[in-house]
Amino acid sequence: MKDFEDNPLYKIMHPKSIAFWGASNNSMSMGSIQLANLLSMGFEGEVYPIHPRDKEINGLKAYSKISDVPKKIDLAILILPTGVVPGVLEECGLSGIDRAIIVSAGFSEKEGGEGKLLQKELVDIAKRYRMTFVGPNCIGVINPSFKLNTTFFPYDARPGFIGMASESGSFITQMFVHLAKFNLGFSQGLSLGNEAMVDLADCLEYLAHCPITKVIALYIEGIRKGRRFVEVARRVSKIKPIVAFYVGGSEAGGRAGLSHTGAMAGPDRLYEGIFRQCGIMRARSIEELFDFCYVLGSQPLPKGNRLGILTHSGGPGAAAADSAERSGLELAELTPLTAKALAPMVPNTASIKNPVDLTFAKNYSDYMAALPKILLKDENIDLLFMYCLMPHHRVMSVILGSGTDLIQATQFAEEFIKNQSAVTSLLASESGKPVVGGSFCDRTELFVRELQDHGMPVLPSPERAVSALGALYRYSRWLRIFS
Amino acid sequence: MKDFEDNPLYKIMHPKSIAFWGASNNSMSMGSIQLANLLSMGFEGEVYPIHPRDKEINGLKAYSKISDVPKKIDLAILILPTGVVPGVLEECGLSGIDRAIIVSAGFSEKEGGEGKLLQKELVDIAKRYRMTFVGPNCIGVINPSFKLNTTFFPYDARPGFIGMASESGSFITQMFVHLAKFNLGFSQGLSLGNEAMVDLADCLEYLAHCPITKVIALYIEGIRKGRRFVEVARRVSKIKPIVAFYVGGSEAGGRAGLSHTGAMAGPDRLYEGIFRQCGIMRARSIEELFDFCYVLGSQPLPKGNRLGILTHSGGPGAAAADSAERSGLELAELTPLTAKALAPMVPNTASIKNPVDLTFAKNYSDYMAALPKILLKDENIDLLFMYCLMPHHRVMSVILGSGTDLIQATQFAEEFIKNQSAVTSLLASESGKPVVGGSFCDRTELFVRELQDHGMPVLPSPERAVSALGALYRYSRWLRIFS
Repeated sequence: MKDFEDNPLYKIMHPKSIAFWGASNNSMSMGSIQLANLLSMGFEGEVYPIHPRDKEINGLKAYSKISDVPKKIDLAILILPTGVVPGVLEECGLSGIDRAIIVSAGFSEKEGGEGKLLQKELVDIAKRYRMTFVGPNCIGVINPSFKLNTTFFPYDARPGFIGMASESGSFITQMFVHLAKFNLGFSQGLSLGNEAMVDLADCLEYLAHCPITKVIALYIEGIRKGRRFVEVARRVSKIKPIVAFYVGGSEAGGRAGLSHTGAMAGPDRLYEGIFRQCGIMRARSIEELFDFCYVLGSQPLPKGNRLGILTHSGGPGAAAADSAERSGLELAELTPLTAKALAPMVPNTASIKNPVDLTFAKNYSDYMAALPKILLKDENIDLLFMYCLMPHHRVMSVILGSGTDLIQATQFAEEFIKNQSAVTSLLASESGKPVVGGSFCDRTELFVRELQDHGMPVLPSPERAVSALGALYRYSRWLRIFS
Repeated sequence: MKDFEDNPLYKIMHPKSIAFWGASNNSMSMGSIQLANLLSMGFEGEVYPIHPRDKEINGLKAYSKISDVPKKIDLAILILPTGVVPGVLEECGLSGIDRAIIVSAGFSEKEGGEGKLLQKELVDIAKRYRMTFVGPNCIGVINPSFKLNTTFFPYDARPGFIGMASESGSFITQMFVHLAKFNLGFSQGLSLGNEAMVDLADCLEYLAHCPITKVIALYIEGIRKGRRFVEVARRVSKIKPIVAFYVGGSEAGGRAGLSHTGAMAGPDRLYEGIFRQCGIMRARSIEELFDFCYVLGSQPLPKGNRLGILTHSGGPGAAAADSAERSGLELAELTPLTAKALAPMVPNTASIKNPVDLTFAKNYSDYMAALPKILLKDENIDLLFMYCLMPHHRVMSVILGSGTDLIQATQFAEEFIKNQSAVTSLLASESGKPVVGGSFCDRTELFVRELQDHGMPVLPSPERAVSALGALYRYSRWLRIFS
């Protein structure tokens, strides 16, 4: 914990008091929205709005200048027109504030040299006062378990285990809704903007020590200090997995990134090489970034690459097998013991090779308990993919078919699905092997909610689930070779 | 229409009367579930259950044998133990039934020669009586606008424009819930099983003439008659787009397919070549299959590959740009006229290069109407991607901020989002150019529902939206070269 609390980013992510520039009684300004958001998250520290005229903002006493604030301030948040930012930062320094988030844009990302000069001025001021700031041209940070959200988006996911550092603010804020689709959440999220001071490597150092961060997600448009990034990433990826989505590898993506945060992209091959030598798992899309984080942050490391596939539907089984090979996994050869144990439990249409394909889930209890139990015991299986489909309407119709009345059946179905999901996820976690589910159903179905909430990842397709297991295996292989 | 109605599959997909084997008073049997499903879809034709003992099944008079049924029957559905299937098929032939769906499994997909022999027997019987059957080892077919669903899954999507032929039944039935995520649906869906008679090429012929099918989806584990497939597919893809997901290209996927439906897979390169020469757009996953179908089935063909990107968030814009280049699109260079028109509408932090990045959506009306209108008029833009984000809570907070009370604000917000979405989708459809939205929000958000329901595709990420536009462009290029 000492390393964590001593990190310069710790105080930015855990401030006890905040001075806030840019909020006013115009509730529609960006700053006012961000302040409202900060308060609605239930932030428990003190907040001091600074405004030249308004005396009270969003129910808080406002101060006309920072020197009027009677308390010691941990963090300054600046959401101001570009030109006034250096002056205010200077005032912060004079008042002894040594941490800041500069949301304001118009610095090095702008064409022409003026923005760059202004940004250099910020850095000079910060150095003079030994300050550390995030930004400029960022959206802010989020630390859900600390009830801190300095962005302008309400955080509607739960506190989670993904620590993210992003060169795009949207890929922090707009992921809240994406993470909620899986009951995932951020442990810490940092939007870095132009990275005038704090950059990706700094965040890696910080997140490496964060006890609630199990996996680190990076969104990269361009790495600014290559050598340091490689040095830090190689070290950190031995502590916890890092997953990165890089968009600068194509010329179009690189150009877009340049005008976004002024980041200089590099050729795809160069970045591919950096990721490989650092043990960073590369994702090809934002969805894949979080798929990988979901599995790498929640599942134990596999001993090898031999995948077991359990399905009751041939197509999803074949798609999973195809995806396995494309992801560096091989299909496990089941032991004779497993084949013998499976034989009496499956219909004669079923395949007891791998994929184990039941062809039709007649008995959900077997499918969700007895069968994965047998497969997880098989010493030839290092990882397990389970195709999951236990829709409420099917369970209901089975129970109604046995003559139960509607009200009882509804209750039984719910209990049944909850029990089965709990059993499956317990089996998975007790096996010590990685187990990932795949289903085209989402959290509107009870079984998906229950499995996910019990800690078993369920992804929206067999291909995505198996591809994430592939990333987990590649990470484990890298660790074995380089640790 | 004549070609359509003359196709041998027409009567299977539009039966006026069905004889149904395998349903009984055991409501839990597969056959009983499929019959219940057929009835609950509201099938308007006549249904005659055939059962040796039960006199009434699911409220319908049952017959002990087909020769007792007093009416002419269009279609037989057989969900019976393997061994009795040939005998019943023979009875069908004797009774003048010339169309059948054989759901029963245990034929050529089984190891050992017996299943193959039994399957050959089915084909011999069918030929003797000039019958056409789908299967065996299939799940059945779906024709939602005809209220026909012979599968065991309730159809909870709407009738749509995607005609699908699948070597996996799951990738028909289990897609109902996937399609519903986008308010999409099948026009026709055929699960082909072992393809003893009806194969992928037959379905292509049929779907080519189906007036409500705008795009054809194929799930392929292995093509059985290569030459005929190529001949038909080349012809059909000039009439409407075909999108295929092939899982047999990896060794693991190929083996899984073999034990699933007995299909012989071929090397990935061979299939890649087949798809290329036929103008079939290849999808790399089930999700991508339907993403491509969504866009290819709903959007006009672009004149070129120059993509415009409209965003208010840099990260999604950069991800879209990166995806564009990887999908064969290039970023359009905006005309000076466009730049001039955009300049007064965007804040000074914004980029009016392409991606057009507003950096912050201050004014949703501009973003959803004025800006896309300008871009769609630009002669240098052939296709447009719009990053979409108009969450209800943000619109509400804007309206509440103007002093409106909660009840009125709720109503205003809903009207505003509906109006804006209608305007955007109208602009898109009137432009004659393909326009696709991308958003991490799903149909729980009103703006996503409204845009999609007005006919503008909205996919779950910028990368997926742009990748689908890339497929649309590649299809248009193929058409230009080969038609």
